[in-house]
Amino acid sequence: MSAQQPSIPQGTRDFGPAVVARRNYIFGVIRRVFEKFGYAPLETPTLENLSVLTGKYGEEGDQLLFKVLNSGNFLKKQKGDKIKEQVTPEDLLAGPRAVLPKVAEKGLRYDLTVPFARYVVMNRNTLVFPFKRYQIQPVWRADRPQRGRYREFYQCDADVVGTNSLLCEAEIVLMMSEVLTTLGLTDHTIKINHRGVLGAFYKALGGEGTEVDLFTAIDKLDKIGREGVEKELLERGFSAAATERLFDLLSVGGDFEEKLERLLAAFATAGVEPDNADGYRGLQDLQQVLTYLRGFGFEKWKNLEFDVTLARGLSYYTGCIFEIKINNVNMGSVSGGGRYDNLTGAFGLPGVSGVGFSFGVDRLYDCLEELQLFPEAVATTTRCLLANFDAESEVAVLPVLRRLREAGIASELYPEPGKLGRQFKYADGKDIPYVLIQGPEERAAGRFKLKTLATGQEQTVTLEEALAELAN
Amino acid sequence: MSAQQPSIPQGTRDFGPAVVARRNYIFGVIRRVFEKFGYAPLETPTLENLSVLTGKYGEEGDQLLFKVLNSGNFLKKQKGDKIKEQVTPEDLLAGPRAVLPKVAEKGLRYDLTVPFARYVVMNRNTLVFPFKRYQIQPVWRADRPQRGRYREFYQCDADVVGTNSLLCEAEIVLMMSEVLTTLGLTDHTIKINHRGVLGAFYKALGGEGTEVDLFTAIDKLDKIGREGVEKELLERGFSAAATERLFDLLSVGGDFEEKLERLLAAFATAGVEPDNADGYRGLQDLQQVLTYLRGFGFEKWKNLEFDVTLARGLSYYTGCIFEIKINNVNMGSVSGGGRYDNLTGAFGLPGVSGVGFSFGVDRLYDCLEELQLFPEAVATTTRCLLANFDAESEVAVLPVLRRLREAGIASELYPEPGKLGRQFKYADGKDIPYVLIQGPEERAAGRFKLKTLATGQEQTVTLEEALAELAN
Repeated sequence: MSAQQPSIPQGTRDFGPAVVARRNYIFGVIRRVFEKFGYAPLETPTLENLSVLTGKYGEEGDQLLFKVLNSGNFLKKQKGDKIKEQVTPEDLLAGPRAVLPKVAEKGLRYDLTVPFARYVVMNRNTLVFPFKRYQIQPVWRADRPQRGRYREFYQCDADVVGTNSLLCEAEIVLMMSEVLTTLGLTDHTIKINHRGVLGAFYKALGGEGTEVDLFTAIDKLDKIGREGVEKELLERGFSAAATERLFDLLSVGGDFEEKLERLLAAFATAGVEPDNADGYRGLQDLQQVLTYLRGFGFEKWKNLEFDVTLARGLSYYTGCIFEIKINNVNMGSVSGGGRYDNLTGAFGLPGVSGVGFSFGVDRLYDCLEELQLFPEAVATTTRCLLANFDAESEVAVLPVLRRLREAGIASELYPEPGKLGRQFKYADGKDIPYVLIQGPEERAAGRFKLKTLATGQEQTVTLEEALAELAN
Repeated sequence: MSAQQPSIPQGTRDFGPAVVARRNYIFGVIRRVFEKFGYAPLETPTLENLSVLTGKYGEEGDQLLFKVLNSGNFLKKQKGDKIKEQVTPEDLLAGPRAVLPKVAEKGLRYDLTVPFARYVVMNRNTLVFPFKRYQIQPVWRADRPQRGRYREFYQCDADVVGTNSLLCEAEIVLMMSEVLTTLGLTDHTIKINHRGVLGAFYKALGGEGTEVDLFTAIDKLDKIGREGVEKELLERGFSAAATERLFDLLSVGGDFEEKLERLLAAFATAGVEPDNADGYRGLQDLQQVLTYLRGFGFEKWKNLEFDVTLARGLSYYTGCIFEIKINNVNMGSVSGGGRYDNLTGAFGLPGVSGVGFSFGVDRLYDCLEELQLFPEAVATTTRCLLANFDAESEVAVLPVLRRLREAGIASELYPEPGKLGRQFKYADGKDIPYVLIQGPEERAAGRFKLKTLATGQEQTVTLEEALAELAN
């Protein structure tokens, strides 16, 4: 055979039956929680115009976009002349910026947020606001693949746009909590902070450096520690004194409410003006989220933490920000999100505030696997294999097969007569729990043998008894 | 605002909440039937190596492949030099064949069959054969978009490989029938034919022209009629006498079994050798499928037609072929499939026979819509909107909201206090059937107003009564 050895692209995966079933279990839990909170499903195309995607994810993001050659038939066999017309050697020598728009106008969805914003703007005249949508679809990033980082992976987003209500933030905390609890991931921490609080920190430092530098440095605290952050801040023009003031603020202690009070006092001391929209609004917003959560009946919630060091990289957040850490697994955050005030502005619809969050299904999957939390019943598989004796009995058992399926029992007849050993092996390999056997002897007696593979137990039963057992 | 007007690429679609819910209803019906017959889910990546895709769909197919620029970062900003290294102006002038492999090594999945074959070959040492898988995923084709033809659309495939058993063919007929019947599309015809029968036709014509020309011409019978097919055959080297013999064969009448008998006689008359593997095997296979279907209890089945004019374009079919027509809607076939004997041969695993079929969800959707067959309960939406009076009552009703959700009732509180009219409009726009209202007066009385939007009916109820009504 001179045939090729097939392979799949780096950073992509095939999901076999058992994995699909487990992933669908996670998607199902997330979907049901989203829907219970009034979020409705949206699906957008895989292909988006590059004009929609480019410039929305920063320069690094632009480089990680997968770009698709025009219409598939650019560069096609008969079009030698056309391509020469489209892209000249001069273009090529002029560099990629001249070439790209001529060869690729489409790209693969990079996240679910920008397509959502695009959808909202395109449908703004027919949508009912506030618009609450969830979206569970794959995204693509031309990142360097490594353990746990893929080029094609699913995101599960829920967002609401068209309202400033902090009820949405409170409900996001509830949705996060319900998804994790339903999945059995009870040892988790939902971290919340507010960009305004971080903004007030910046003010409290006395206006050195830039706000973005400050947020970026704080974001790395987990990874590079206090020393690393100090070093970075000094390099970026913050003074040692300012850096010290920052760490005083970052180390504020107490429970949610105590932290709010202490920061309020600290802001006053540090000369953050009471009418500073950012800082005080941040504290007020967080207080209001807490009020809503108490209204729902959640008091002194150990899984919820006001983490003033939470910064989150994405620049479009303007209000509350969230992140979830599973405490008993060594793994980055499994979910994150926040409020943004101008997501649709890039598409000509300014002033639409929204808030949303996203679950990373791959990380949730790994957590569930490591903690052995997948329910056994998750696997979608055949429940009963009918053994196939010979050409005659093969046809004779077809009415039985029909009965099983009509009773809603996923069943199959081994498709060829043959050795029982091979058929048992098939059932075993496919995790089919039961084999139903009717050889000539059983047929004469109007009975079946029902074998339970896990225990090896075999019982002689009537069809009705088999149906009752299999329906359990 | 100088912001761009966003758009989506030609031939792609956004699916809003109501459409997603209806599509998921169709997917759900198909999935449940597939699983009941022992097919297990598989998902393959959107990105496949072009070496896997190219050459599998004919020359036209190759041109319809969407190709993805290497790693996303080919043509990236800083890489001007690298691209000049990779692709020279000489390459470009030498034509697209020289350029393509240097800029694009990956493409978008074109169908679900080739990735399935690739998966089988890559996992042949761990899979349990016969391997029965289903796959419901989007595919991409750079076709010219037109009404009902998209560049991004879903396919729903079920295939079994590793057995020659015609039980699989019989069960495909059953699965087709069950999906359509469950969806309410009862007025349908499942057409079946066999490539061997068509091969025997070719033999019966006396060896003129080529087999492919014959099949291609027959395939067009529906569209261009007898005259058109005759014209095409004459142009392709078939004689008028041969063409006449063909139409004698094609016009064989009677029910399934009568057609089998008459063709058997006609083949003998026409000098098709009894040991002609194709023709006689074709009739025998179809007879065996019929035997299985009778075994299942389906006798003289009006929805099943042995259609000797069914040819199906794809060249890889070698045995039975299928197609479904919905009779009371003006629409092409909603499903098709057949047996292939060498699908995995291209990847170095010859001799693996398989059979499969595919539903086109877009056409099924259009049929259900035209015949108004979507169940009303399909829409996934909030069941109850809690009205939001003012800041005080907003917090006061949170325990009610929690109770509703804990009872599994999808519910939301309008996120801002405000005019009831606006809130009713919101419920209406989102197809929320109930609004639950507790103003200061109702709160004092420990009661609620429950309004049914469809009828405008309003009743005063306790929380328990509301829960009971909403749970229905």
